[in-house]
Amino acid sequence: MNHLSQRLDAIQAKLGSEEIDALIVSSPLNARYLSGFSGEGHIVIGKSDTVICTDGRYRVEAAEAQGCDAVFHPKGHLAGAIDCVTRFGAGVVAFEAEHVTYSNYEEMAARLPEIPLHPAKGWIEELRLVKDEDEISAMREAARRADLALERFIEDLQVGQTEKAMAWKLDTLLMELDSEPSFNTIMASGPSAAKPHAVPGSRVLVEGDMLKIDMGAKVNGYCSDITRTYFIGDPDEKIVEVHNLVKQAQAAAVAAVRPGASGKELDAIARDIITAGGYGEYFGHGLGHGVGLAVHEGPRVSSLSEDVLRPGMVVTIEPGIYLEDWGGVRIEDMVVVTETGCEVLTLAPKADYV
Amino acid sequence: MNHLSQRLDAIQAKLGSEEIDALIVSSPLNARYLSGFSGEGHIVIGKSDTVICTDGRYRVEAAEAQGCDAVFHPKGHLAGAIDCVTRFGAGVVAFEAEHVTYSNYEEMAARLPEIPLHPAKGWIEELRLVKDEDEISAMREAARRADLALERFIEDLQVGQTEKAMAWKLDTLLMELDSEPSFNTIMASGPSAAKPHAVPGSRVLVEGDMLKIDMGAKVNGYCSDITRTYFIGDPDEKIVEVHNLVKQAQAAAVAAVRPGASGKELDAIARDIITAGGYGEYFGHGLGHGVGLAVHEGPRVSSLSEDVLRPGMVVTIEPGIYLEDWGGVRIEDMVVVTETGCEVLTLAPKADYV
Repeated sequence: MNHLSQRLDAIQAKLGSEEIDALIVSSPLNARYLSGFSGEGHIVIGKSDTVICTDGRYRVEAAEAQGCDAVFHPKGHLAGAIDCVTRFGAGVVAFEAEHVTYSNYEEMAARLPEIPLHPAKGWIEELRLVKDEDEISAMREAARRADLALERFIEDLQVGQTEKAMAWKLDTLLMELDSEPSFNTIMASGPSAAKPHAVPGSRVLVEGDMLKIDMGAKVNGYCSDITRTYFIGDPDEKIVEVHNLVKQAQAAAVAAVRPGASGKELDAIARDIITAGGYGEYFGHGLGHGVGLAVHEGPRVSSLSEDVLRPGMVVTIEPGIYLEDWGGVRIEDMVVVTETGCEVLTLAPKADYV
Repeated sequence: MNHLSQRLDAIQAKLGSEEIDALIVSSPLNARYLSGFSGEGHIVIGKSDTVICTDGRYRVEAAEAQGCDAVFHPKGHLAGAIDCVTRFGAGVVAFEAEHVTYSNYEEMAARLPEIPLHPAKGWIEELRLVKDEDEISAMREAARRADLALERFIEDLQVGQTEKAMAWKLDTLLMELDSEPSFNTIMASGPSAAKPHAVPGSRVLVEGDMLKIDMGAKVNGYCSDITRTYFIGDPDEKIVEVHNLVKQAQAAAVAAVRPGASGKELDAIARDIITAGGYGEYFGHGLGHGVGLAVHEGPRVSSLSEDVLRPGMVVTIEPGIYLEDWGGVRIEDMVVVTETGCEVLTLAPKADYV
């Protein structure tokens, strides 16, 4: 895993340029990204050393992390990190302001009274924006397993089941593929599909329902994310109209993904098509988001986003139309930005109402 | 839900005595405890009003919350809370220091430059320590469903399955009981049982294995927590010895639970028995913990805890013995403290090796 040492090198270079002696990493995903450590705790990155501060429950995970010593402090993870900073003789210390509670900040400040504490924001998230080949492989595989589970689920789909039971069935299919859900599966039937983030409930699937499924798998910690909207029975005119419009908007935005495109531009491409179709006010969320170790991470892909795509970024493209008391349609793919355009990672078929 | 207004009254009285005009509640569990709101966001408690600051995804949940207005701020939950504080005309504002990131604290401080921000710690957690009748009913039911799932699982248990598949099966049984796991199920077979918090893996259950299962259910947001250790086949002398010792220590500690007992005293009762049996050094964690909306909350029940039990507190009693390369035994019940002793909520049978 040569990439890990490159990531650490990048952070150590950042420490140098910011004139900081050590960084305490508190986000579990950031810690995993930098060291491979998948347990709970903090990691402390000094100018030359990296130490995992955890407890005895995570001995195995700490041993698996490359090139790091592990410290098991009897008074807890933060006490371990504070000790470590002292041991490094650090003069200025940065901490992850977005991942440290105010209480823990107070404890650091009280126990390191001589040391200026610098609130770092997004240092590691910035590195995580562009995925390397190993990360893309894991995400390709996570997308493939989600596709497979979804296809098996749909093949065997029958009316009469609650949303909750169907969500569990889909999760079970993922589990059988040696994966796990990357977030709480959305299984929204009939009018429930009008809620963009519906929680699976006790509503029973009946003939004539639409069924919106938003799900993902995890492989080596990396997430996939896909949405499809199905119809049980013969679709009426309105569902055909709405589904085709969303599908067209989604395809146009995917076709526009390339290095240099901004989140804002992509959002506008899909939104303009939906607006021209007369449903603009019913597309009430951004077009997409980045995916990686977290199912939602940078870059932002929305009407407010100036983020510009670069090769290796992985984003979702997921327009939707939601009509209260009727239902909703969303179609989402996860794509990786290439040198010239993008590769679509999620390949499960979309309904075809021509 | 009269209890909710009593809880708000208690917090408003606290605001009065601390000379604070408003409290921003950021912990989702604390927000749910005070208002019944089960979505994401902050709630702001003023001297007479309570406002939920969330977004459009949680309209339904906000409407279900009693006696609170809802604010959907376009710039997010925290912006909504900050606006709300301003609207209340609050002079001094408290925030939950243990649940607010340093970044969010900075944002509050920057946007409320005239207002002293007071870091509150444990105000609501203190109220949550003692459960009312509704909470105890939910936890009794959560314990009953976990018992049922566990008993059904054991009735049907067969060798040849991986820990991961077995954990999923048990979770599925919970789902079929219209519940869900209150935490990640621990399913540790053979030598894996030596890890107190083993993650279910690919090890396959074989004849002659011990099987340690730590699981719980959720009902109305309230958790249960139970551990049993089984043996596949005829137990040998050592497993009988260790299991009986843990069982004896556990029963003695449960028998000592009553108002006025401290966490430390209870821990010592179980630990002394295990130490007298020659295994003291292999009981490497505290005796138990409080349970409620969180599966781990106050009071603490360990050798370091001065917390004293009161009627209505719900705690686990869960001694264990863990021997590397051999395995481990833990037995855990969840009990509610009564006026004179305790009621055991988890009733699934323990193995009986007399």
